[in-house]
Amino acid sequence: MSDLSQRIDENIARVADFPQEGIQYKDITSLFQNPALCAEIVDAFAEFSRGKIDVVCGIESRGFLFGIQIAQKLNLPFVLIRKQGKLPPPTIAESYELEYGSATIEVQPQYIQKGMRALIHDDVLATGGTAEASAKLIEKCGGVVTQFSFIADLTFLNGKEKLSHFTEDIQSLVGY
Amino acid sequence: MSDLSQRIDENIARVADFPQEGIQYKDITSLFQNPALCAEIVDAFAEFSRGKIDVVCGIESRGFLFGIQIAQKLNLPFVLIRKQGKLPPPTIAESYELEYGSATIEVQPQYIQKGMRALIHDDVLATGGTAEASAKLIEKCGGVVTQFSFIADLTFLNGKEKLSHFTEDIQSLVGY
Repeated sequence: MSDLSQRIDENIARVADFPQEGIQYKDITSLFQNPALCAEIVDAFAEFSRGKIDVVCGIESRGFLFGIQIAQKLNLPFVLIRKQGKLPPPTIAESYELEYGSATIEVQPQYIQKGMRALIHDDVLATGGTAEASAKLIEKCGGVVTQFSFIADLTFLNGKEKLSHFTEDIQSLVGY
Repeated sequence: MSDLSQRIDENIARVADFPQEGIQYKDITSLFQNPALCAEIVDAFAEFSRGKIDVVCGIESRGFLFGIQIAQKLNLPFVLIRKQGKLPPPTIAESYELEYGSATIEVQPQYIQKGMRALIHDDVLATGGTAEASAKLIEKCGGVVTQFSFIADLTFLNGKEKLSHFTEDIQSLVGY
């Protein structure tokens, strides 16, 4: 683990038995208690994406927190990927399966120009379902997904595999 | 209107008949197409709050977008105010009335120390119901709400009045 990974890991709070018994939840919101570390995280994300993207797409809602900062750091537009019904029209939607039931996310297509290179950003990569649906959404709008980035990758869920047919350029700052 | 207000206004998209017929929706997400303007907005918010707060509390989910940037600019912790069930325990909750039904928001109390001066930040001030509930939540945790800030104030809904018993120090960058 790099020095930054280690410090991120130390600053992520653990919550026992959440969201269900036997699961140790990694709470990334505790990172925001440490603004100096957050600034380093933004730098690491920006370094990864500099010159390789034209737009940052952040997944609601924790993906907004570093997503907007990556966009601002790189002087790029930021596009919100939100849950159904939250964005005003026009919107384009994509549905995907969850463990129980399904979910739908939306984007405003006027902000994705044809051929735009997009970063999809979220806080945690779990099964990759939401990130994969987000990438499909951006490609429906004419964009090209060239990168994904995450604070943490729950590697035992193999989310990366699901994303690798879009791009192999996937960053996660800490792996579990 | 100041020069910044005017440019913000020009960069906020209008959507006819959303969320219902006859309403012209002000879509602040269009601001994120203009990173230079966003940087100026962050500066204006930070200028307002510098030296007057110890923590920034952002309301899910659009309040995260500038909220986190204000916190980072001022080198302060950022605390998420989220919809019920989203944050891991321990949490403290506050419910409030909506036009139809009610809503509940939550915060992690361990991040609000006794006497901490808090800014409550959101994108738009409408009736003030969510911002008022957020302020009650922070005060339940022992914090003191010393400021509110918003990009836009829908002044005809009189939200400011509802917040003025917490503090008169309320910033909005553009009024409608």
